[in-house]
Amino acid sequence: MTNERQNVTMERLTKIVDSIYNQLNEGDIPTMDLPLRSKKNIEFDPRNNVWKYGNMQTNRTCKTVKGAMMMLRTLHTIGFIDEMIKTNKSSTLREMYYISEGWGNGKFTSQDESNLLAEDLEIVSACMREDFRLRPEEDGARVIGDITISELNRKGERKTINCRDDVGDSGYGIPFNVEKEKITIKSGNAKFIVAIETGGMFDRLVENGFDEKYNALLVHLKGQPARSTRRFIKRLNEELKIPVTVFTDGDPWSFRIFASVAYGAIKTAHISDYLATPTSQFIGITASDILNYKLPTDKLSDQDIGALKSELTDPRFKDEFWVSEIEAMLGMKKKAEQQALAKHGLDFVTDKYLPEKLTDLGIL
Amino acid sequence: MTNERQNVTMERLTKIVDSIYNQLNEGDIPTMDLPLRSKKNIEFDPRNNVWKYGNMQTNRTCKTVKGAMMMLRTLHTIGFIDEMIKTNKSSTLREMYYISEGWGNGKFTSQDESNLLAEDLEIVSACMREDFRLRPEEDGARVIGDITISELNRKGERKTINCRDDVGDSGYGIPFNVEKEKITIKSGNAKFIVAIETGGMFDRLVENGFDEKYNALLVHLKGQPARSTRRFIKRLNEELKIPVTVFTDGDPWSFRIFASVAYGAIKTAHISDYLATPTSQFIGITASDILNYKLPTDKLSDQDIGALKSELTDPRFKDEFWVSEIEAMLGMKKKAEQQALAKHGLDFVTDKYLPEKLTDLGIL
Repeated sequence: MTNERQNVTMERLTKIVDSIYNQLNEGDIPTMDLPLRSKKNIEFDPRNNVWKYGNMQTNRTCKTVKGAMMMLRTLHTIGFIDEMIKTNKSSTLREMYYISEGWGNGKFTSQDESNLLAEDLEIVSACMREDFRLRPEEDGARVIGDITISELNRKGERKTINCRDDVGDSGYGIPFNVEKEKITIKSGNAKFIVAIETGGMFDRLVENGFDEKYNALLVHLKGQPARSTRRFIKRLNEELKIPVTVFTDGDPWSFRIFASVAYGAIKTAHISDYLATPTSQFIGITASDILNYKLPTDKLSDQDIGALKSELTDPRFKDEFWVSEIEAMLGMKKKAEQQALAKHGLDFVTDKYLPEKLTDLGIL
Repeated sequence: MTNERQNVTMERLTKIVDSIYNQLNEGDIPTMDLPLRSKKNIEFDPRNNVWKYGNMQTNRTCKTVKGAMMMLRTLHTIGFIDEMIKTNKSSTLREMYYISEGWGNGKFTSQDESNLLAEDLEIVSACMREDFRLRPEEDGARVIGDITISELNRKGERKTINCRDDVGDSGYGIPFNVEKEKITIKSGNAKFIVAIETGGMFDRLVENGFDEKYNALLVHLKGQPARSTRRFIKRLNEELKIPVTVFTDGDPWSFRIFASVAYGAIKTAHISDYLATPTSQFIGITASDILNYKLPTDKLSDQDIGALKSELTDPRFKDEFWVSEIEAMLGMKKKAEQQALAKHGLDFVTDKYLPEKLTDLGIL
């Protein structure tokens, strides 16, 4: 009862197991190569237009007890994934951590370890965590707007849902797996996407009917967006050929939210071409907005300043727009939230702020 | 275009304004009485079977600058609510905080202040924050199961939604306002409610088809539940006459989650009879479960121990079950998460743990 994609996943995972088995069989101490996962090893991939891991490698070996235990965990994890695929189950990363209680010396010592291992397996197998049937605790975000999708539900039935007409005011909830086998995008009249950082602002745009007036598709990012949310945005962008805009607070952490939608995150640089939408445009609060609209601000904390400085060396923020915005914010030592626009009334954001920004970008 | 309920809200708020106006008019320094909002002033209300504020009062007066500023904020806030009702708008508490930028000396100095004021107004007017059209940042939680509701959406259209058949695997999202004007519960075949603390466990029960096999309605609490989630549970309990069970982690904070569903929270003791479902039963992880099922545990932190000790003096935890559970946990110095049940496999919770607990309670 497994499909093509599941077969590919199992083939690739089996190859990893084979390699370890063969090394042991020939009397070698097993090793496994992985790309180095840090900022200095992400580089721009011009073909896909996203940041990806470079060529620096790290080597995991059973020469140390720690390395051997990690290899054991890897094998147990692959066995667990195999079982889930065969029984049509999925598991949270947290559940896998607890399940490892029964793995003796292969038991995880913390959940960070099991999370990292899942990512390592993605890199080595070139599959996705969703293929491994491992999911995060938190569900994806909400969507409102005129697109119609079809979702294969847990009972194996297909539900057709229009994300404006068939949902309540809370919108359509993005499930953790949004791959083609689970979700197909059937049609859409929405002309562009506005991905929004906070729930308060998402609800503001919904209440003000911004989606209807401008034919926009609203997506709630819920802070740093889940993988499923980023993947869903990318698929909408590619399949419906509509532009993506990202509307966030004006602070260093929000700039990173934009970067993770547009260029991918360091943690998931190995799957940037699945998750990132490089043509995304920033319509969040900038230093100039703070000045022009006299927005209520908060002082930058030491952490904020450190984060901004670190962004100046982050390859994702190397273009002129970002360098000048980051330097302007460092200069004024202030940040502002997107909801601060409410200073000028509840309609200001939909009557003035967004129409102006979207017109500047040529989207309206 | 205002409805009956909105008229009542405005009448009651106007009465507050009248009282301040009349005091000023007669040359008196305006004052306002409020119940004391702390643990020592909550007492059991035998009529409604929930914990509510007692008779201790505190007095807010304009004799001090601080008190006068608070009174000014109160008046501005009532003006803002009046405007929202008239224009059919709503606002997040955060937006109101920013809107107060234009109120001169009536400007809020922190969001805590605006949140508390909204609660004060609820108490004095005996209305609900939802009547004031003020909403929290965070949306309500998700629901899956065989009930059918009808939601009046932002466009004034009624949508009928079955929370099992008309939604994706992410379920139906509870909107921030679940009062009768917004949501009507049309019918339901679900026999009982399982309110679940974590998203991971909610998804586990969904994936395992627990709702279908046992005709259960699953509600994700998302940690400490939002007001709309608690209100929705209470309405389902009353209108469909089905029992409510609460399935949480086994730690002091989770005990409080149960208490807020069952008996109300200290912060919202003034509206306990709207929010609390006193017949709720606890099916979360207990000290005995940790022993019986040999669950993976974490050591209690100093904060955990402090929280448990404080619960021993909390009137909501005065019965025999809770005193013995809290003392047992203090004795073993350990806590466990609900997902720790995965130690025994992904089906253990739905094949054994829940059926046993629900049978003990006479629900299955």
